[in-house]
Amino acid sequence: MRRLEIIPVEGLPEVRPGDRLAPMLAACAELADGDVVVVTQKVVSKAEGRVVAVDPDDAGAYAAVIAAESVRVLRRRGDLVIAETAAGFVCANAGVDRSNVPDGYVTLLPLDADRSARRIRDGLRASLGVELAVIVSDTFGRPWRQGVTDVAIGCAGIAAVVDLRGTSDALGRALEVTEVAVADELAAAAELVMGKATGVAAAIIRGVDRSWFRDASVRSEIVRPPAEDLFR
Amino acid sequence: MRRLEIIPVEGLPEVRPGDRLAPMLAACAELADGDVVVVTQKVVSKAEGRVVAVDPDDAGAYAAVIAAESVRVLRRRGDLVIAETAAGFVCANAGVDRSNVPDGYVTLLPLDADRSARRIRDGLRASLGVELAVIVSDTFGRPWRQGVTDVAIGCAGIAAVVDLRGTSDALGRALEVTEVAVADELAAAAELVMGKATGVAAAIIRGVDRSWFRDASVRSEIVRPPAEDLFR
Repeated sequence: MRRLEIIPVEGLPEVRPGDRLAPMLAACAELADGDVVVVTQKVVSKAEGRVVAVDPDDAGAYAAVIAAESVRVLRRRGDLVIAETAAGFVCANAGVDRSNVPDGYVTLLPLDADRSARRIRDGLRASLGVELAVIVSDTFGRPWRQGVTDVAIGCAGIAAVVDLRGTSDALGRALEVTEVAVADELAAAAELVMGKATGVAAAIIRGVDRSWFRDASVRSEIVRPPAEDLFR
Repeated sequence: MRRLEIIPVEGLPEVRPGDRLAPMLAACAELADGDVVVVTQKVVSKAEGRVVAVDPDDAGAYAAVIAAESVRVLRRRGDLVIAETAAGFVCANAGVDRSNVPDGYVTLLPLDADRSARRIRDGLRASLGVELAVIVSDTFGRPWRQGVTDVAIGCAGIAAVVDLRGTSDALGRALEVTEVAVADELAAAAELVMGKATGVAAAIIRGVDRSWFRDASVRSEIVRPPAEDLFR
């Protein structure tokens, strides 16, 4: 039976707009065939130039950036906005984030985090000649439960959701609830070695079920269409 | 820097009402100081006798069990009910589950899954003489995102939420979003080696940050009071 290893990627330098993440990651980690590399949104957004200046003395400026990133505001309480982004994510402040960014700047979510993941995966595959998968993760809150967890906002080379429909459980009965969001579980697992304050922005997960390796995207498999959502 | 290992616990026999899980787990796994043992709700409910007979030919009987487990129904679509349980969990069918149970039976959630986790932890600690933590996990859906993930419904000996407020990020700024639901991330990580159909009902996570080991409960740290929830 397989066991998994979760390995922090240490020593990644500060990322700047235009940086190519694949060679930076390859320089910091011994990557092997079958690895899943989880990279946080923050460094992906920085590399892709999704950073904007916001005057810290102008309260309206921050709100305007959030409004520009939102296609729908679901809830508002004080300074907190729960909004849906153009990519379909529902999260605090439409993903606009001031942490781990210099004062006076914020990061925005990647325009297409599945594409971001593919670009990193393709770069790693070309330079290392190994088959691996990439997940871009971000930290979201959720209804009903306190505390944030990391989830996948993009993926390449690995299933976002594994469908066990049609297989049977350990007692031979058909399973009822069966679509497991493995990309979200991998993102959550990676966060356990990253923390928020340690500067570790990527992790490797080794030993993942090879049957999960395939073309997939978070957008098509995990983002729930609003019309199918019981809470929108 | 720490790395984590996630190890499936194999060979756990079919669990029956009255079984003591701690010695059963200890017999199947080489447990070490500092391990986090994640045990699925299904075997905990079976051991605690939270199994009820439901006539499979009586559609109303299953609905009645779900109603009895619900303190509030949030949404209903067809056969699916999203309900809040007495313990404060919001989940499909109030946690009443027909999978991995013989035909004609369903499992209910443990009455107090934090207590379930404490009982297993105390049993393992007494027999093995090692310090370890226990999480009881279950598989929940969520708004906005498709696919289910495993979350913690009970814990013992480990933080449910780790509060990083007051610490600073890698750039020395105060962090904004900082309460990480590590118990949920550990449950999600464990699910990656369990799957739904393989009969693996527990996993060990080795290498977890020792500063997270403390008295805690899911109920007090993760269950969000309805009055503080923007979506109830």
